[in-house]
Amino acid sequence: MSRKPKPLTADPSWATFNRMKAIEWLGDRVRILDQSRLPHQRAYLELKRYQDIASAIAGLKIRGAPAIGVAGAYGLALAALEIKARAKGDFISELRAASQALSHTRPTAGNLFRAIEGMLKVAEAGKEPGQIKKALITEAVRIHDEEAEATLKLSRLGAELIKDGFTILTHCNTGALATAGYGTALGVIKQAFEQGKRIRVLATETRPLLQGARITAWELKQANIPFQLITDSMAGYFMGRGEVSCLIVGADRIALNGDTANKIGTYTLAVLAKEHNIPFYIAAPTTTIDPSLASGEEIPIEQRSPEEVTRIQGVAIAPEGVEAANPAFDVTPHRYITAIITESGIIRKPFGEGIRKIIND
Amino acid sequence: MSRKPKPLTADPSWATFNRMKAIEWLGDRVRILDQSRLPHQRAYLELKRYQDIASAIAGLKIRGAPAIGVAGAYGLALAALEIKARAKGDFISELRAASQALSHTRPTAGNLFRAIEGMLKVAEAGKEPGQIKKALITEAVRIHDEEAEATLKLSRLGAELIKDGFTILTHCNTGALATAGYGTALGVIKQAFEQGKRIRVLATETRPLLQGARITAWELKQANIPFQLITDSMAGYFMGRGEVSCLIVGADRIALNGDTANKIGTYTLAVLAKEHNIPFYIAAPTTTIDPSLASGEEIPIEQRSPEEVTRIQGVAIAPEGVEAANPAFDVTPHRYITAIITESGIIRKPFGEGIRKIIND
Repeated sequence: MSRKPKPLTADPSWATFNRMKAIEWLGDRVRILDQSRLPHQRAYLELKRYQDIASAIAGLKIRGAPAIGVAGAYGLALAALEIKARAKGDFISELRAASQALSHTRPTAGNLFRAIEGMLKVAEAGKEPGQIKKALITEAVRIHDEEAEATLKLSRLGAELIKDGFTILTHCNTGALATAGYGTALGVIKQAFEQGKRIRVLATETRPLLQGARITAWELKQANIPFQLITDSMAGYFMGRGEVSCLIVGADRIALNGDTANKIGTYTLAVLAKEHNIPFYIAAPTTTIDPSLASGEEIPIEQRSPEEVTRIQGVAIAPEGVEAANPAFDVTPHRYITAIITESGIIRKPFGEGIRKIIND
Repeated sequence: MSRKPKPLTADPSWATFNRMKAIEWLGDRVRILDQSRLPHQRAYLELKRYQDIASAIAGLKIRGAPAIGVAGAYGLALAALEIKARAKGDFISELRAASQALSHTRPTAGNLFRAIEGMLKVAEAGKEPGQIKKALITEAVRIHDEEAEATLKLSRLGAELIKDGFTILTHCNTGALATAGYGTALGVIKQAFEQGKRIRVLATETRPLLQGARITAWELKQANIPFQLITDSMAGYFMGRGEVSCLIVGADRIALNGDTANKIGTYTLAVLAKEHNIPFYIAAPTTTIDPSLASGEEIPIEQRSPEEVTRIQGVAIAPEGVEAANPAFDVTPHRYITAIITESGIIRKPFGEGIRKIIND
C-alpha cells in the first residue's frame, strides 16, 4: 500500500515541488506540512484518523482548493482502513458518515466535494470491504497524481501569457503547498520564471490569514523570483501607476458561466484590473469547475471566526469585544475575467461555451 | 500662557471630544495621547521640546492631517520658547530651522505645511522675540480652535448626506484623535448618529498600521455606534452585495482640481464605489486644500519603512529578509469623488470651480 515518490517529469521545477510537500500518503497514514505555522515553523504532522484530516482542513493546516481535495480523498482512505464492517452495505454507510464529516469542514472549495464524490463512486463500484479499501487508496493516490500533473500542465500553458518584463500581481497562496502539486497562479509565475523570463511579482499579504505574506513570500523567496510584498490595500496604487502587467489568481470554485469564487479580496482586485484595463487571469485545474452550478451566485461563502480579523498570530489588534466580519471568499463575476487557465487549455469568453467544451471532452 | 479648556459649544458630542484629547497645550509644554499604543494602552506624553513633537509626528504618536497641523503649530511655539536670541533676525532664523525639522517629518499631510507657514507669518509680523513668543502661542491655540470648530461644522454639514438606515463604509481613522477636534469622515458619522439616524458602519482595519482596527473601532465603540470591523480586502465583497450606502473618508491633501491624497487603500475604495454606483465622499477642513497644487500628481507620497508591512505590533508575519513596499498614501483622482465636505460647504463637481470659490471667500 506504500507509494513511492514518482517524479512526474525531469523538470527542475518538479524537484522544487518535491522539497516542499503539502501532503504525502505513507501507506497507512498521511503526513502534512502544518501550513498554519509557516513561515516561523516547518512542522510536519502524521495523521492516522480521518477526523484528524477534517480538523487539519478546518484549521487551515492544509489549505488551497486542490490540496484540500487531495486531503479529502486521503481522509476517506484513512476512514476506510478503520471500518470493521464486513458487509458492503454497512461498510458504505460508515464510509458515507466519514465523508459527511470531511465535507462539512469547508463549504467553498469545490475540489473537496468532487474528490469525495469520486471516492464514494469507487467504493460503490467495489465488491467487498477488503478490495474496496485497496481501491480507495489507489483512487486517492490517483487523484493526487492527477491534481499534481494538472497543475504542472496548466502552469506551462499559462506561462505563455507572461511576457518578458512583466510585473504580475497575485493574491493569497497558490503554489506547491496550496495544490499538493506544482501550483496554479503561482505555478504559472514559477514556470514563466524558469523559462528565463525576467519577471517581478507583487504579492498581496492576503488578510486575514496572511497566506501571501506567510507562504507565497516564502515560496517566491525559495524560487529566487524577484518580488515585493504589499498589503491588500496597495493593489490600486500600483495599478494606478501603471506598474502591473497582469493579475493571476487561483480559484476555489468555478461555476459553469465562469463566475469564480476565490480568497476574499479577489473581487476587489478584479474590479481594479477592469478599471485599469489590465488582464485578469484565473488559474485552476478543471477539478475546480463545479458542473452543478450555473452561476457564482450559488456558491456558498464560508464565514469564519471574527477572531481571525481581530487577532493576528494571537496578538489582539482591536479593542476587546469588537464585532468583525470574516467572509473567507468572494465571487468574481465572469465579466471581470480575461481568461481561465486550465490543464485542458486556456478558456476565453464566452466562458460558458469554453467550459462546457472542456468538461465534456 | 496657560489655556483653559474652552467648550466650544454645549453639544454633547463635544463632551465626547473632550474626553479623548489627541493634543493639549499646557502653557509651556504639550500633552499628547500616544496613538501608536492604542487600543492596548492609553498613555499620555508631555513634550517640552519641538524635537519631541517632530519625533511624535514621524512615529505616528500623533496622526491624522488636521491633528498633525495642530501639533506642528504647537511644536513651533515650543521652539520659540526655547530660543534665546534677542534680535528679531536671529530669532526668526532659529525659528526657521525648527520649522524645517518639523516640516520634514511627514511629506503628505497638507495641514502641517499650512500651519507652519501661518506661524512663520505671525513671527515675521512681530516686533521683538518676547512679543513674538506670545503671539506664536496665541496663533497655535487659534489654529487648534479653528481646526476643531471646522471639523465640528463640516461634520454637521456632512451629516445631511447620511440618511436613516444607511450603512457607511469608512477607512483609516478620522475622528477626534485624528483631527484634534471632532472628526472629519468619522465626525460626519458621529453627527448623523447623534441626530438619531439609525446607521451602521463598516470600518476597514487599514493595514499596515491598523488605524481602523485600533482607533476607529475604539471611537465607534465609545460612541455606541453599531459597526463591524472588516479587512481592507472585504470592501468589494460588501459593495457587491449591495450593503454599502455610501463611503466617507478623510483627506491628507486636496489639490485645486479636487484630486485627494489619503491613506493607502482609499483609491481602491473609490474605484470600487464607482463600479457599484455608490457615493464616495471626502470630508476635510479647508486647511487640507493646498492652493499651490493644480492636481494630485504633484502631491508627494510618503514611503515608510517596509517593517510596518512585514511586522504587526512587533510580530513578524513574513519570512526574514522579504522586500515589502510601503507607500503610506495614494491619490484619488477627482472623477471618483462625489462631493468634498468642508466647513465652508459641500463642494460638488466641477470641483475646480467650487474649491476656488471656497478658498477665495
